[in-house]
Amino acid sequence: MPNPTAAILIIGDEILSGRTREGNAYYLAGELTRVGIDLAEVRIVADVQDQIVDAIRTLSAKYDTLFTSGGIGPTHDDITADAVGAAFGVGVDVRADAHALLARHYAARDAEFTPARMRMARIPDGARLIDNPVSVAPGFAIGNVYVMAGVPSVFQAMVASVLPGLVAGAPVHSHSLKVMQPESEVAEPLGALAARYPALSFGSYPFEVTQGYGVNLVLRGPQGEELAQAWRDMRDTFPGGE
Amino acid sequence: MPNPTAAILIIGDEILSGRTREGNAYYLAGELTRVGIDLAEVRIVADVQDQIVDAIRTLSAKYDTLFTSGGIGPTHDDITADAVGAAFGVGVDVRADAHALLARHYAARDAEFTPARMRMARIPDGARLIDNPVSVAPGFAIGNVYVMAGVPSVFQAMVASVLPGLVAGAPVHSHSLKVMQPESEVAEPLGALAARYPALSFGSYPFEVTQGYGVNLVLRGPQGEELAQAWRDMRDTFPGGE
Repeated sequence: MPNPTAAILIIGDEILSGRTREGNAYYLAGELTRVGIDLAEVRIVADVQDQIVDAIRTLSAKYDTLFTSGGIGPTHDDITADAVGAAFGVGVDVRADAHALLARHYAARDAEFTPARMRMARIPDGARLIDNPVSVAPGFAIGNVYVMAGVPSVFQAMVASVLPGLVAGAPVHSHSLKVMQPESEVAEPLGALAARYPALSFGSYPFEVTQGYGVNLVLRGPQGEELAQAWRDMRDTFPGGE
Repeated sequence: MPNPTAAILIIGDEILSGRTREGNAYYLAGELTRVGIDLAEVRIVADVQDQIVDAIRTLSAKYDTLFTSGGIGPTHDDITADAVGAAFGVGVDVRADAHALLARHYAARDAEFTPARMRMARIPDGARLIDNPVSVAPGFAIGNVYVMAGVPSVFQAMVASVLPGLVAGAPVHSHSLKVMQPESEVAEPLGALAARYPALSFGSYPFEVTQGYGVNLVLRGPQGEELAQAWRDMRDTFPGGE
């Protein structure tokens, strides 16, 4: 059975302008691989409602799960909740449970619960809240879409909340072999190896160091005899590898 | 008048698996912002031909310019040229000019020009080549789509080749000079040269061969008297270059 699939939609002008280097997709990719879900697509769009709505509709229909990152803070241009509501055809309003979480949080800090902060309690009708142990303001899930914050520490905490509940396929195991040859030299023997094990995945990732060119060969697949056999075969094919 | 728009499509399983942190979109975002082009969307898809073809068609229709990164190396899974050919409805084959560049490169290194390496000369019909001063294998452009390598140093050199033509709307011409000195020795005289011609672009791309270290110096700009003068000046500054 193939692994379940996922995509992530990142909302943020600060990424597209080159000001911030995106890291949440990279983090999520590693976490999903670990639990046997294939990240199949990443999209980054600007804070423009039509584009967000289009991307949510397309990606949530195409893949088993869609994650989003960003656009759920207190500022006027944080429009993800409205975009998700529009994509699912449901209303969006301040909700009692989310409001109570935030009111308690600010009261405990003697901080004012301003209208801007209250925006963070706006949740599409019918969504489930996603716990935010870092800064309280919740994410939410509706259908197969998980809407999470862009701040990396909050994003990571929300991923940790959500992942165990998703149905995971078989975990992927991997083996790496560092070979000090240019990629163009390993391409043919690696292709022959890949042809012998069509159920496994072979990748080659070139690098350059002061001593010359090299390539990291990575073999991935479900744990078992075929993976073990392919790994022995790969080491025999590239005896200088380490 | 609004800024021109662009998107980048990144092809690479190694990004989606979480193995590699994507950096080319981040680099391109900064470069485009600097020259007044708005990066409007980023997509990352797997090495799957249908997905690449779909994304090329959608993004090249929606934005003024589409850049792609990855999938043009020598390995069996590098399918970008075929996907671009399919998206534009043109054939893809080994082309004489690209073949000649690579044949000369491998001959100079006494290296075999294998069938895997010959794949790097496969170019969609009607495309223009994009200069690769780092590792020779060219990128290519067809319509408003610029197809570039995923290796960051090569991607950045190709962006440097392409950007001045997009901004100026005039074709960019380039001159290359191979200098057998370490990059650290040429940095100062090259910097002084660049300061004399602020409208032109100067790049240096180091390499290592059995005979020692060297650097390819590349001068880029719109054709004209200033470019010709700077090229004479560059050859006078590095009289050993060829």
